[in-house]
Amino acid sequence: MTDIAVLGYGTVGSGVVEVIDKNSKSIGMKAGDEIRIKYVLDLRDFPGDRVESVLVHDFDVILSDPSVRIVVEVMGGVEPAYTFVKKSLLAGKSVCTSNKELVAKHGPELISIARKKGINFLFEASVGGAIPVIRPINSSLTADAILQIKGILNGTTNYILTQMADEGWEFDKALETAQKLGYAERDPEADIEGYDACRKIAILSSLAYGRNVDFEKIYTEGISKITATDICYAKKLGCAVKLLASSEYDDGKYYAMVAPFLVRSTHPLYSVNGVYNAIFVNGESIGDVMFYGSGAGKLPTACAVVADVVDAAKHLDKHIYTFWSEEDLELTGIENATRSFFVRMSGKPEEQKDRIEAAFAGAQMLTVDEDPDGFGFVTGPVTEKEFNERLKDLTGVKGRIRFE
Amino acid sequence: MTDIAVLGYGTVGSGVVEVIDKNSKSIGMKAGDEIRIKYVLDLRDFPGDRVESVLVHDFDVILSDPSVRIVVEVMGGVEPAYTFVKKSLLAGKSVCTSNKELVAKHGPELISIARKKGINFLFEASVGGAIPVIRPINSSLTADAILQIKGILNGTTNYILTQMADEGWEFDKALETAQKLGYAERDPEADIEGYDACRKIAILSSLAYGRNVDFEKIYTEGISKITATDICYAKKLGCAVKLLASSEYDDGKYYAMVAPFLVRSTHPLYSVNGVYNAIFVNGESIGDVMFYGSGAGKLPTACAVVADVVDAAKHLDKHIYTFWSEEDLELTGIENATRSFFVRMSGKPEEQKDRIEAAFAGAQMLTVDEDPDGFGFVTGPVTEKEFNERLKDLTGVKGRIRFE
Repeated sequence: MTDIAVLGYGTVGSGVVEVIDKNSKSIGMKAGDEIRIKYVLDLRDFPGDRVESVLVHDFDVILSDPSVRIVVEVMGGVEPAYTFVKKSLLAGKSVCTSNKELVAKHGPELISIARKKGINFLFEASVGGAIPVIRPINSSLTADAILQIKGILNGTTNYILTQMADEGWEFDKALETAQKLGYAERDPEADIEGYDACRKIAILSSLAYGRNVDFEKIYTEGISKITATDICYAKKLGCAVKLLASSEYDDGKYYAMVAPFLVRSTHPLYSVNGVYNAIFVNGESIGDVMFYGSGAGKLPTACAVVADVVDAAKHLDKHIYTFWSEEDLELTGIENATRSFFVRMSGKPEEQKDRIEAAFAGAQMLTVDEDPDGFGFVTGPVTEKEFNERLKDLTGVKGRIRFE
Repeated sequence: MTDIAVLGYGTVGSGVVEVIDKNSKSIGMKAGDEIRIKYVLDLRDFPGDRVESVLVHDFDVILSDPSVRIVVEVMGGVEPAYTFVKKSLLAGKSVCTSNKELVAKHGPELISIARKKGINFLFEASVGGAIPVIRPINSSLTADAILQIKGILNGTTNYILTQMADEGWEFDKALETAQKLGYAERDPEADIEGYDACRKIAILSSLAYGRNVDFEKIYTEGISKITATDICYAKKLGCAVKLLASSEYDDGKYYAMVAPFLVRSTHPLYSVNGVYNAIFVNGESIGDVMFYGSGAGKLPTACAVVADVVDAAKHLDKHIYTFWSEEDLELTGIENATRSFFVRMSGKPEEQKDRIEAAFAGAQMLTVDEDPDGFGFVTGPVTEKEFNERLKDLTGVKGRIRFE
């Protein structure tokens, strides 16, 4: 019997209890021992609920019980999660968490404590919901040098962008619908401004390159400025707009960014729609590998957490090596990255044609029926820095999106 | 220092040596100890090669050296691989293999020996080349009940079918090109008749359902009867022809089969082209998860083998639980499976229309310019058994393909 405690009985926490109850036999077999939920911590009461008899309001009950070998942290947010997790690890209890804020901010310290204690800090569910990606990077791609990660890591924004493309909706209407369906929070900022995807790419990149990527140093741009008209131009260009989170190793330098991109229909990420997530990994020897699945949701996320519990139970007194040191990885700014841009303008193309050609030689002009008072153009490959400088020569710029 | 021996210095074996040499520092860090290739076994000599100094011709040299803790078997074929692997495990050496014939035929026995000895028998590279799929099923999807696996598991046939679609080639020309490029063996039977995909779906299904799936009991049909004309009809139907290997749990019964299918453009497997592989897994709680990547090739496969070596080195005296018992899983025949079929006919549609309508009410007729002396029709959902019986009422049947 391996006793565990679950911190937080919200959406994911109740999913964890449900999954362990439902699949207890096969989970016990795979873990090598029956998994028993000894405590559930929550400030609220749940009269009549299955967890009523194991519910506690005081974390110290869990901390001071030596029979609890694994703590599941599914409260979210940095505090008090960080304090509880650190105390648990220092007390010799392994921790499994779905909390990306915690992992992005304190991951290397918590991994280091687990290493010293010979126990485990596992966080598969912090990125990509049910999609196995943390463990594959950490345990399956160990023989190769990872050169690039590129992913759709936020289901809320992907749902919004998919609805804008499918229904022709403006951003606000798609966001409202996402909120009604429970795909977006009431305060949607973390999702729509890219902060959530930023934390996730920081976690994946730290694991891929072996050093700590500070999420606060990643260039991050959200999707709140994308309009229905932008999507019309994207379609005319044979593209979909996707919020991509990416990082790359090239010629001794590391780059990372989060921003909306125009993705061509030939790219495998083009057809990742709705709340689905997908993560591309490029390795020097293995080439492209992709992981795809449901990026969120109560039961998918709970399954990822419980799989970590199984792994922690199999390794109660053995630290699973995690390739993520406390040393910081220095990121190079994106200003020298070269790519093509789509620019949306107000006015008539013929009036601005010469100035655009002077700024961006060979730029291709295009119009769509849905934008009678404006037009767009596509630049050739240009660095971010040059692009921003030359754009200043133009008037009537309404927006721009990078090409993947 | 962890000493290993590599059995077989062919394509994958030389890739294993190359990957370990190239990434020795990071591999050693992840394994927790330097990995040293102490022996390479091959019947041939390799004068001047990097392995010359460690080359042996006699397996007993490796077997009798207690310093060798991990044996890498990359010879292929059942014998002598089986004898060498079994002896290695019985001598307390962990084994990592890329050999699907060996794993499909003797997997449960070899896993059982490894379990009793407290060591490991790992085989990530036996399915999907570089794609992490065995370890994710065994370590990441442990909290859920897997209901379905569906995959493009053979790169050779996928390359042939992609070329037939892109270039309009007949099967023979596409096969010849695949052979010239090294994507197909000189004796291509195992690939084109589906035997290779059959072994791989047997391995994945055994791991997913926890009991041994006998590959010889899986209904298997290859792609050698697919013609350029079939592909023209597929395109007209908005489909691609893919060799799918699948298994399913439904209402207490298990089904498995390998056959070419018509895959609609909305299905994620539609756009998996060339030598790429992809594996869909459907879990009761997690929904669909997909793994995609290079299904073969020297370095990708070698990386998967070396990742197993890293895992074996981390677990030298600890068996990693593998959910695959020696008990056989009973498969239910496919005759009661219901689906739509495409049927290709000789003659004129108007001459046969009534008989077709009598046999398959509501069948949709279609013609393509490339088949002036024939036509096709698509049935509604019908069981395999009914389909085969009713097809006997028709004359001029030239072929049939199932719809996914």
